[in-house]
Amino acid sequence: MIVLFTDFSPTGPYVGQMKAVLAARAAGVPVIDLMHDAPACDPRRAAYLLAALAPEFPDDAVFVAVVDPGVGTDRPAVVVAADGRRFVGPGNGLLAIVARRAGRRAAWRITYRPERLSASFHGRDLFAPVAAMLARGDAPPGEPIDPAAIAMPGWPDDLAEIIHVDGFGNAMTGFRADRLVPDAAVTVSGRRLPRRRTFGEAAAGEAFWYENANGLVEIAVNRGRADRVLGIGIGTTLAIEDARG
Amino acid sequence: MIVLFTDFSPTGPYVGQMKAVLAARAAGVPVIDLMHDAPACDPRRAAYLLAALAPEFPDDAVFVAVVDPGVGTDRPAVVVAADGRRFVGPGNGLLAIVARRAGRRAAWRITYRPERLSASFHGRDLFAPVAAMLARGDAPPGEPIDPAAIAMPGWPDDLAEIIHVDGFGNAMTGFRADRLVPDAAVTVSGRRLPRRRTFGEAAAGEAFWYENANGLVEIAVNRGRADRVLGIGIGTTLAIEDARG
Amino acid sequence: MIVLFTDFSPTGPYVGQMKAVLAARAAGVPVIDLMHDAPACDPRRAAYLLAALAPEFPDDAVFVAVVDPGVGTDRPAVVVAADGRRFVGPGNGLLAIVARRAGRRAAWRITYRPERLSASFHGRDLFAPVAAMLARGDAPPGEPIDPAAIAMPGWPDDLAEIIHVDGFGNAMTGFRADRLVPDAAVTVSGRRLPRRRTFGEAAAGEAFWYENANGLVEIAVNRGRADRVLGIGIGTTLAIEDARG
Repeated sequence: MIVLFTDFSPTGPYVGQMKAVLAARAAGVPVIDLMHDAPACDPRRAAYLLAALAPEFPDDAVFVAVVDPGVGTDRPAVVVAADGRRFVGPGNGLLAIVARRAGRRAAWRITYRPERLSASFHGRDLFAPVAAMLARGDAPPGEPIDPAAIAMPGWPDDLAEIIHVDGFGNAMTGFRADRLVPDAAVTVSGRRLPRRRTFGEAAAGEAFWYENANGLVEIAVNRGRADRVLGIGIGTTLAIEDARG
Repeated sequence: MIVLFTDFSPTGPYVGQMKAVLAARAAGVPVIDLMHDAPACDPRRAAYLLAALAPEFPDDAVFVAVVDPGVGTDRPAVVVAADGRRFVGPGNGLLAIVARRAGRRAAWRITYRPERLSASFHGRDLFAPVAAMLARGDAPPGEPIDPAAIAMPGWPDDLAEIIHVDGFGNAMTGFRADRLVPDAAVTVSGRRLPRRRTFGEAAAGEAFWYENANGLVEIAVNRGRADRVLGIGIGTTLAIEDARG
Repeated sequence: MIVLFTDFSPTGPYVGQMKAVLAARAAGVPVIDLMHDAPACDPRRAAYLLAALAPEFPDDAVFVAVVDPGVGTDRPAVVVAADGRRFVGPGNGLLAIVARRAGRRAAWRITYRPERLSASFHGRDLFAPVAAMLARGDAPPGEPIDPAAIAMPGWPDDLAEIIHVDGFGNAMTGFRADRLVPDAAVTVSGRRLPRRRTFGEAAAGEAFWYENANGLVEIAVNRGRADRVLGIGIGTTLAIEDARG
């Protein structure tokens, strides 16, 4: 299985162009669009989102992860293996959190150079071809590097910021709920929010936080849009008290 | 064939997460995204849209239908068989109209409980796994119930409201055109609209109604956006005179 | 491989309805969504976009191209073969540029009529079934015509207009970059833009043009949205000096 995680947006030709490469070079391998509205040009916030979503995928999944504002510069292209799953993408921190949370990790700097390498679309020209190689069973086409080379030691283990707003207006944070004590206080936009288990537990119009289906602290409003009610969006910071450890 | 009909929006990770489950549990079965912008949190209007779209799919199609504002509460999870096609989703009325219009119908309350059942994402954790079972040939994992239990007797046979606005600004209603006499009057936003067969029959800028490709009364403007020209959107009601029967 | 290029928007049921037809009639053939936000109702601008994107697809790809404001009128339905690739769509100019740029070209007027032919959705009822026939190896179901019949002799070889704005706000033109001398001046919104090879070569906030990954002149702003910074969108014209030939 090849899994796509990009900030290309679901519109435009880029996703289709990547898929055409995959269909030609890894025929028969299922391709899953995980999301194409990852935090745009923002590998740091995208890293926490990817790390929350990746663990439920099969152990042999190959991810193409592209949030790459530095495409065309000298940032490296890398392959990361984390608990068996492999990730292909830019070495700009996007894969740092998924690697940090893994029990087993390895990394390679991609040295393969395709015949055509545009300055602005490595997703199509480099990352998709490498993912197809991995999905077919080839070794990473590059040289092993110390995973520490792609770690971002200054980044926290969990990110107390909004990293995604879904179609309903619910706001995901980069903070894992199991890092909080059960009655932890979460404050955003000056409002201290209660914890609820489900939307149904909240009164109509009530703002609350809950552990979402991916294990993250999420801000929501029952029968309303949290983004509009609370005036929050990607990058809004939260105050979280009483986090464990 | 597994067909997805949700209000998750085409953005965000939810659709991809459902598809990963289907790819793992029903490998090789084609998965079709019918739409992911069904009327949001609105099973009533979504029910008429689904009922209009479903009949053109193959008889052995399995639908995953998720418009489920009550997820996490005690609303039942159901399987409905309607003229052979099977539908998996919440028992909140979403499947009531497709069942009502079928010549043959049956229903089951899902009793299967997956290892992981989040409070907010039954599409991934419950409905997709059940759809995979059905697509593989298993029986519905639950107990038969009287289809009357999921009927919504207070809902009309056709809904004289806008239930979807497409990318061109055309506004679909929940009313089947073959229920109208040919020269029926349709009034919306205080304007009585003529019937046209095609866009080309209407003058540039003219508002009209026609029978759309799914058999529904649709409001349109030739070379314009009906939603903006007429100030209409999901939920706008229509006055329809001279409907048959 | 069947490739979809439409202006249906990624939302709503139309794309899924086409894919259901393809899944039933060309089972096992990969279907790629190239884009569903081609310039809406605008076959002229869409023609230049399609012509820029098509050459990277496999020689045996079958394209379903639908930008068809005249659906339901007497505009012809056609098949075009261009350097081996085949294109199914309306004979309204949408396929004129891809044919013009091909070394080998042929055309057919589709005479096949399906059992169900709605007035407004030939993508589902006519073009998808014909594409499925071609993908299965059938000959075009129609009569050969002179490709000149679908040419648009009044249209230029390259279009000095914005034809697509991507999710990052970058604005693609219909002008091939290799038609310009290296230091060509591109002026848009009264601003003469420098050429850069990559985003990284531009200063933060600087507007520039570059050759995008599809060979087109594209207007961009480093770390910004060109559409907003320059006030440009689909249809904005450019002044291009010193084009070759």
